[in-house]
Amino acid sequence: MKLLRVGPVGQERPVVMDAAGDLRDIGEPEIDGAFFASGGVARVREALDAGRLPLVEGRGLRVGAPVARPGKVVCIGLNYRDHAAESGAAVPEEPVVFMKAANTVMGPDDEVLVPRGSVKTDWEVELAVVIGRTARYLTDREEALKAIAGYAISNDVSEREFQLERGGQWDKGKSCETFNPLGPWLVTADEVGDPQDLAMRLWVNGELRQDGHSKNMIFDVAEVVRYLSQFMVLEPGDVINTGTPAGVALGLPGQPYLRAGDVMELEIEGLGRQRQIVGQA
Amino acid sequence: MKLLRVGPVGQERPVVMDAAGDLRDIGEPEIDGAFFASGGVARVREALDAGRLPLVEGRGLRVGAPVARPGKVVCIGLNYRDHAAESGAAVPEEPVVFMKAANTVMGPDDEVLVPRGSVKTDWEVELAVVIGRTARYLTDREEALKAIAGYAISNDVSEREFQLERGGQWDKGKSCETFNPLGPWLVTADEVGDPQDLAMRLWVNGELRQDGHSKNMIFDVAEVVRYLSQFMVLEPGDVINTGTPAGVALGLPGQPYLRAGDVMELEIEGLGRQRQIVGQA
Repeated sequence: MKLLRVGPVGQERPVVMDAAGDLRDIGEPEIDGAFFASGGVARVREALDAGRLPLVEGRGLRVGAPVARPGKVVCIGLNYRDHAAESGAAVPEEPVVFMKAANTVMGPDDEVLVPRGSVKTDWEVELAVVIGRTARYLTDREEALKAIAGYAISNDVSEREFQLERGGQWDKGKSCETFNPLGPWLVTADEVGDPQDLAMRLWVNGELRQDGHSKNMIFDVAEVVRYLSQFMVLEPGDVINTGTPAGVALGLPGQPYLRAGDVMELEIEGLGRQRQIVGQA
Repeated sequence: MKLLRVGPVGQERPVVMDAAGDLRDIGEPEIDGAFFASGGVARVREALDAGRLPLVEGRGLRVGAPVARPGKVVCIGLNYRDHAAESGAAVPEEPVVFMKAANTVMGPDDEVLVPRGSVKTDWEVELAVVIGRTARYLTDREEALKAIAGYAISNDVSEREFQLERGGQWDKGKSCETFNPLGPWLVTADEVGDPQDLAMRLWVNGELRQDGHSKNMIFDVAEVVRYLSQFMVLEPGDVINTGTPAGVALGLPGQPYLRAGDVMELEIEGLGRQRQIVGQA
């Protein structure tokens, strides 16, 4: 099942895409933590199967992030060997964890802004996990997989100078305005199947820059969720960006960082496609 | 003006403390981002001055965090010279920025839990700033001070092994369940006056461990807010923990980390007092 939110910024309406590709009103106020915590996914599935959801005219509507107001966005760094290598970093012995401000989350095709003073704004295609139930000290992989509502494409936009050269911790280069396009859809876990079997690609101005596969994660999705739950309480609606494969500007010859006017396109198998035009803050 | 939230976890009621020390209903659904963004502080002040707010029987009620559901908790690391020295770190040339998961925020006297597997849980008394209006690329200190709704005590509880010895970034040791007691009150900026003129102290089991003063911040409150707004959009209800002075367990002889049964007490001039009993997760 593909859940999404369509409409102007701040006025998105939650809908589901049916088998014919049409949008249907889900009859719920939002796709957010309360929706997941109260069994919203099962309710929508039942109503959809029963033919109770009315069609919505979605043509031409903006697509927002598929989750409203995530409580937090947790990220895994250096989770692909090839990306660790291009970053000049060692392969981590356990997951590297950092955070993005949750108000970076926006629609999959909204404008990404190069921050003022930035000369090293970079892209990162990632498999995003959306949490469906509270996860605290999970004991095994099965529990971890049960805590997942679904998956989406995430662009973990990063400013490398702010992240790596401005003192201390990475969060400073990860939390700038517009730095987390998410969507177009939240695809429920049952429909995705094996999250480690997804090709993922990113193009800049039509040139293929990242051509990775989720099978190459160092710590896979189940382990990432289990691991994180030892250090924090994951809540319904939380988003986890599970790391990016090689091919970011930081690791490319000449470091071709983003400039206003550039166009990013992202694709993950089964999760749809994003397209962002880059602007200047 | 002192704003606070009283009642059981998840059912807190927003109130104001009047000049006599009594609690009065503020006639608003919550003290949160929407409250600040819509001019809630001015509304409450006017209603309080006009004698329109009814008394609330507050005796014996639990005190919650004074802000409901902050969108993010941003922290400044190593912002006191003496704490940088005890941590074995250089004095930073610009603010060190990291984040705590916002769901760590809880009441000032709620139980702090030592995480499972933890042997290095530590305390940090800090001056917390609560943002009152959206702050984006602020140009000067005056704009920064205008963006502040008020101040509160924060205990930036930290797990040093998770933070420093488990690979990569600090957030892993900062986001554990119960790791951010906040309150008891949000004291509005006008009542606090100069945020750089506040004594701050923390005791463990009655022994004075931190005895600092906000005048010793390396980057003061106005600069921290101005600086952060260059890297992220601060929103009403966001919390900034502005750093801790010396005296944490990490820097003390024998490193007397917290154990179940320990009692922490925190005090900042004009901002009240916290008291947490330590338990085991």
